[in-house]
This record gives sequence, C-alpha cells and structure tokens, in this order.
Amino acid sequence: MTTTIIGIGLIGGSMAISLKESGFADHIIGVDASRTSLDKALRRRIIDEACELDEGLAKADLVIVATPVDVAMELLPQILPKVKNQVVMDVGSTKQRLLDLVGSLPNRSRFVATHPMAGTEHSGIEAAIPRLFEGKYTVICEAEKSNADAVALVERMYQSLGMKIAHLNGQEHDVHTAYVSHISHISSFALALTVLEKERDEQAIFELASSGFASTVRLAKSSPEMWTPIFRQNRDNVLDVLDEHISVLSRFRSLLIKKDFEAIHQLMVEANGIRKILP
Amino acid sequence: MTTTIIGIGLIGGSMAISLKESGFADHIIGVDASRTSLDKALRRRIIDEACELDEGLAKADLVIVATPVDVAMELLPQILPKVKNQVVMDVGSTKQRLLDLVGSLPNRSRFVATHPMAGTEHSGIEAAIPRLFEGKYTVICEAEKSNADAVALVERMYQSLGMKIAHLNGQEHDVHTAYVSHISHISSFALALTVLEKERDEQAIFELASSGFASTVRLAKSSPEMWTPIFRQNRDNVLDVLDEHISVLSRFRSLLIKKDFEAIHQLMVEANGIRKILP
Repeated sequence: MTTTIIGIGLIGGSMAISLKESGFADHIIGVDASRTSLDKALRRRIIDEACELDEGLAKADLVIVATPVDVAMELLPQILPKVKNQVVMDVGSTKQRLLDLVGSLPNRSRFVATHPMAGTEHSGIEAAIPRLFEGKYTVICEAEKSNADAVALVERMYQSLGMKIAHLNGQEHDVHTAYVSHISHISSFALALTVLEKERDEQAIFELASSGFASTVRLAKSSPEMWTPIFRQNRDNVLDVLDEHISVLSRFRSLLIKKDFEAIHQLMVEANGIRKILP
Repeated sequence: MTTTIIGIGLIGGSMAISLKESGFADHIIGVDASRTSLDKALRRRIIDEACELDEGLAKADLVIVATPVDVAMELLPQILPKVKNQVVMDVGSTKQRLLDLVGSLPNRSRFVATHPMAGTEHSGIEAAIPRLFEGKYTVICEAEKSNADAVALVERMYQSLGMKIAHLNGQEHDVHTAYVSHISHISSFALALTVLEKERDEQAIFELASSGFASTVRLAKSSPEMWTPIFRQNRDNVLDVLDEHISVLSRFRSLLIKKDFEAIHQLMVEANGIRKILP
C-alpha cells in the first residue's frame, strides 16, 4: 500500500511512523510546502520519498491530507478532480465547512472526512512520535457519501493505528469538538495570557508554578497557525461554548463577591462529576 | 527524629513516605480525625503509630500540620501553647491569614509557615505517593519570626524531600499562588461544569474527549473540602485574578464576534510566551 501524506507535521509524521510500524503502508510519500520538513522526515526515515503534490497523488493508493484546516480547504479542490481510484481523506479538527466544500467537488465518493482525536501541544515534524493514536477515538463524518471501499480502507488504516471509530455528522462533530477540545485551548491560551501579563517582571516566581498550573496552561503552547483556522471555521460553536464558559466563571466570581462559600463548595462538588467521565 | 504528622492525606501521607525513605524521620506518628485513614496508613506502614493530638505533640521533635487550611487555623491555637522544644510547621496553600493568627499565639518562634508547591488532583491517604515533592519548590514565609534552629530543621526536612526553598512574605505568597495555582483550579472546575451542563445527556460523546481536554479539566477532580477554605482565605487575590482571566476570555470573545482572526492569532502568539517559562 503506497500512502501519500500531505503535510508532514505532528499528525502526518506520527501517522507515517505508525503506519510503517503496523505494516499498513509499505511505501510512504511525503508532500509538504516546507523542504526543511521533508528533509528532516527523509533523514528520520519517516517517509521513503518526497515529491510534489501531483506526483504524490498519482503514485498513491491512499492520500492523507494532514495540513492545517484552511490549507486542506485550498488543496481538496485541486486534488479531488485528479483522483482515479485513490482514496483521499483528511484529518482536520473541523468538519462541516469541509463537508460543504467537498459536496460540490468531483469524485466526492472517493473522499472520506475524518478527525482522529489525538495530538499534543507541539507541532511540526520534530514533534512526530510513535503511538500518538493508540487507544484513542477517531471520527468519520458522512460515511454514507463515500464509496464503501473507501470507508473500509480508511477504517482499516485507523484500526492499524489502534484507534476506535465513531461516526458523527459534520454538525454534531463540530459542536462536540467545540466542547471537548476547542474551548480547552481558548481557556489555556487565556490562562497563559492572564498570568504572563501580571507576572511580566517577575519571572523568577514561575519557579513556584505548580504541576496543576503546568497542566492547565500546557495547551497554550499550541500553534497559532493550526488554531486560527480552526477557530475561524468553527467560530459559531466556539462562541456559544465560550459564552457558557464565561458565564460559569462569572457565577464563581459573583459567589466569591458574596462570600457564599457554601455555594462555591457545591459548584466544585458538581464539577467533580467529571471523574465519572474521565476517571 | 520523631515526626508527628497531623492530617494523613495526600500531602501528609506522601511526606511520611519520603521522610522515612530519606532517613530524616525514624519514627512517624499520625494524627487524623478519621480512624479509617489512620488504619490505612498503619497497614501501609506509612506511619509507625497513631495517636491523639496531645500525645502526638508531646512525643514529637517535629510537628507537621497537613490538614485543610481552615482546620490548621483551628488547630494551631490548641497546639502552640503546649509546645516546649518542638518545631511546628504547616504546609497550607494560603499564608497571610495564618501568619496573622500565629502572630498572636504563644511560642510563635517555634512555628515555621511553609507551602510545598506540590500535589495532585487526588486527596486522602489512598492518594499518598513517593517522590511527590522531588525537584519542586517549597515556600517559607516570615522565617525571621521563627527561631533559627526551627527554620534550619524545616529546611533540612525539605531538602531531604529533594525540594528547593524560596522565601516570600505572606502577601507575596498569596498573590503569586492565586496566579500560579488557584486560578488554574477555578478555570478547571468551570470548564468541567461548562461541558457537564451541556453534555448531560450525551455521555457517550466523552469518548471523543482529547488528551488536551483531560489535561485542562484534571484539576476539576480536586477536593471541595480542601479548596473551599483556600478560596475563602485567599478570596481577595483570587477575585482579582479571576476578574483578569474573565477579561482576557472576553477579549477572545469579542474578537470572535468581530471575526478578527488576525488579532486572535496575535493573542495566541503572545500566549505561546509561556514556553519560555514552562518549556
């Protein structure tokens, strides 16, 4: 199986590593706007070959678009018209706009829209690691609009990574990821800014930062190049969730002002309910 | 060295484990309101002996108060008047109110106010683990009001845990911990509530929760019994930081409303500055 990965970063590079290890891919072609990234991937033997988009597409059985979501929206109108028997899939964090776009493109049925729920706060080929996907969920959207053989191939690929598969429509996906991923990033970016602005001249004090702080601001290290287009494409859902989050924080705030510590205790007891979901 | 630990939970229990391992303590006495906790600690050989407060105090060279901060405020007026040559210390997350209190108590100079910046989202003796403190910072407050031998003993104890020592006054401590610890907890509790309220009837969807989400809501599992008195005692500082945090989130919100994604990108670039502090 020859697999072409467009965008050899954290996700594309980590997929390449695991697809080789599992035996799913015997030849991996890398396509990337950055020659430096391709060279690094070649030297690390993460990819077997680097080439231009059209050549990578022509040689592939499976094409994985693993770029930021705005770049994927630009590439798919170039890729899909040239598809013969290949299967094309993406791995982006937003889905509805992409689904709207591919719905109007030729060879829609050779395309499978997916989102593996895995990542780290790092980005680029330097951040690619083995087993990033193992045991996690991936989402496949609108599988009914793709050929059965295309979906089967993509499912087999994800299973070879050790992933579990969930099916959602694009709107469901975008609402849920706003809740279980996108708001976490905004919260973390905002927390980092809150503290950086205050403690500008007192960096020594960060020596005191607890592991709890490190855990809540970890995502603030994430790439603005990746996240700006996600927030752009999922803006309405993210805005809804952000409004709710600010309103919950404001509830804490007004209880602190009123010194109603019994109610604050009760809010925390309710928040502990997260243990049932994330033990 | 006989060490009496009052409050055999996550912190007290973890200290007991490491003080035995390092050889600092050859006999550890546990005092706790919960007989169940004491029995578990005895069975795990975390403590050598369980007894009542007065007996534990009389037998000790060093007394470590490792209860929630409200309980510490109740216990110290009972403990300090009975002190002869013992050294008494606390490990609480808030300092100024405690310092105000002990300033009016007898034997103030035998007391050392401290805060080891270490913990997990779990609590109780079941959560006690080895090496919780290794490589982290501990704060000592108002060391000048304690006898030199008392401070030296406490420093030696923390060094035996592998901790680095910082000195701050109570007000500095309370402001900085509001930034580098307390706000992280409120943010995490609020994030958990935001998502739990929305996804009440759709628990299956949490299977999709990313590791990023898990990391930002981890602290929402923390004990309300521990955190309510912290928020009560550090209410003014926490309120200041919470106001700033809500204002940063509101900046994201208004940029999303205006679809000013260039400015959102810039905010994230600034937030990435946290890498310099927490690599």
